[in-house]
Amino acid sequence: MPQKSTAVSCSNIAFIKYWGNRDAARRIPLNNSISMNLDHATTTTTVAFEDARDDDHIVIGGALANAAQRARVVAHLDRVRALAQIESRARVQSQNNFPMGAGIASSASAFAALSLAATRAAGLELPERELSILARQGSGSACRSIPGGFVEWLAGTESANSYAVSIAPPTFWELRDVIAIVSTAEKKIGSTDGHRAASSSHFLAERVNALSARLARVRRALFAHDLAALGAAIEEDAIELHLIAMTSAPPIFYWSPEMVRVIEAARAWRADGLGVYFTLDAGPNVHLICESKDADQVAARAREISDVRQVIVNAPGGAARLGEEHLF
Amino acid sequence: MPQKSTAVSCSNIAFIKYWGNRDAARRIPLNNSISMNLDHATTTTTVAFEDARDDDHIVIGGALANAAQRARVVAHLDRVRALAQIESRARVQSQNNFPMGAGIASSASAFAALSLAATRAAGLELPERELSILARQGSGSACRSIPGGFVEWLAGTESANSYAVSIAPPTFWELRDVIAIVSTAEKKIGSTDGHRAASSSHFLAERVNALSARLARVRRALFAHDLAALGAAIEEDAIELHLIAMTSAPPIFYWSPEMVRVIEAARAWRADGLGVYFTLDAGPNVHLICESKDADQVAARAREISDVRQVIVNAPGGAARLGEEHLF
Repeated sequence: MPQKSTAVSCSNIAFIKYWGNRDAARRIPLNNSISMNLDHATTTTTVAFEDARDDDHIVIGGALANAAQRARVVAHLDRVRALAQIESRARVQSQNNFPMGAGIASSASAFAALSLAATRAAGLELPERELSILARQGSGSACRSIPGGFVEWLAGTESANSYAVSIAPPTFWELRDVIAIVSTAEKKIGSTDGHRAASSSHFLAERVNALSARLARVRRALFAHDLAALGAAIEEDAIELHLIAMTSAPPIFYWSPEMVRVIEAARAWRADGLGVYFTLDAGPNVHLICESKDADQVAARAREISDVRQVIVNAPGGAARLGEEHLF
Repeated sequence: MPQKSTAVSCSNIAFIKYWGNRDAARRIPLNNSISMNLDHATTTTTVAFEDARDDDHIVIGGALANAAQRARVVAHLDRVRALAQIESRARVQSQNNFPMGAGIASSASAFAALSLAATRAAGLELPERELSILARQGSGSACRSIPGGFVEWLAGTESANSYAVSIAPPTFWELRDVIAIVSTAEKKIGSTDGHRAASSSHFLAERVNALSARLARVRRALFAHDLAALGAAIEEDAIELHLIAMTSAPPIFYWSPEMVRVIEAARAWRADGLGVYFTLDAGPNVHLICESKDADQVAARAREISDVRQVIVNAPGGAARLGEEHLF
């Protein structure tokens, strides 16, 4: 049994958002969501189960995990230990190539990579579906970072049927996600708390009702390579996530002046003929979705906005995979 | 019959917003709304009906009315002529003491002042209710600028029962509306178009359903002088107006980076112990609601925000009234 294993996993950007749970403890969502993996926003994680170790040792981004991070990672390692029927404590080291907690779904790539690395290190070879179910329990959207390319998370009704599948490979459409990073600060309210608050919005039921039709529009637009149709649907959905957050009790404001400035710019560029559409996560950064032929121009214009600190251009990324170089 | 008359009317800030009509042509709204008149944001309008004149002559803010303004004012003068059974054309001059079209409800004070001045110039003395009904047909929220102080617009079901009444006099509560003006540009999409678009938002029905309870909260908070309760309700309602606008098809974005910056600041001041709550209209400016004891501090802090160009502090204003000095 290999006792050390390394995995690399992409973050993903949701075109239709995951926001609100049917079952918060198991992270069974209220609705299907659709996303694209991001090939330039990855987490690499090495896990080794070591019989001599008397406690899990967790290093994230070069620093010892804080209490909240540690509790979440240990709970996930416990899931893996239960599956593998082992007791050994683990050494875990994890490294993002992008800033954490700032609207790029770092917990998605983190728990996807952790799931793959830890199960392999524990001697398990889970099929994709089981790996996605496992990752989902660590961080909901992590289940979408297990399969490759364009992905749909099937909400399901219980843990065993709530997982993500690839709906098109990375090469299917040369889309780009140009992330305009306006802040690298940790977000004030994490997604887990946001999901919990969602049910206090009196608009949530109407959002969930309306989603079947929007999910179908996004699938059709993806399959037809119809950027205008895709873009309209993803902007609607991004706005709705924030509206549900802002109408939660108490309200959660993820919007910032800088975010609104980038949105205004993207709308102006589009009015000017450039094929670009925005989406947002539960954080301050703006994801600018365009085709590869326009990505350089979108990135160049984004860099000219004074509030934008960094721009990361992502192509559709692949499935979570084993890495060749261990972090320790 | 007096052929020249001048009226002065306050603008008003809505605590519960008017957004969406049951009958757009007659401006019968979907819901009751509640507002406070603003004593430092007024329109003064002089109207003279002149038998020798062969067309209406309309000057707004020192300039001849443009085609859109002219059409709306002439239609309103026609309503007055029909009521008074006169044919004479009018000379109209109107002056705001605040920037037009930038989120301070200039059409509210304008059509309230026009209604009072024109009916008096035409020899009519309408009771408050009839004057409010008349003003409503020029600009919905203008009906709320006819009575004094804190006002509720009773939505009604037809023109004859859709009008505003005072629910408390200006002296009832020393509230202040500190308007942080971040832009004096005309808004891109006027309220009339916004109201029309509202019905395309799939959230509108849920908003209207939830309003009875929120209206009751606002009335209770007003009567109890409970700023925290009032503030929570008005912030919710302000966010919802923008939510309905942003989920209209196509979406209407009134939010600007500057607006979000002022909102962020207000929330930070409040977290810091200052009793201040924000509200927004269909424009870029932020209205900071506080008690008179805190108004100087709120105004001073607002002036320190780099995007804020001007600050106007308003106490509760009175009813539309006749003016002593004519503009011509």
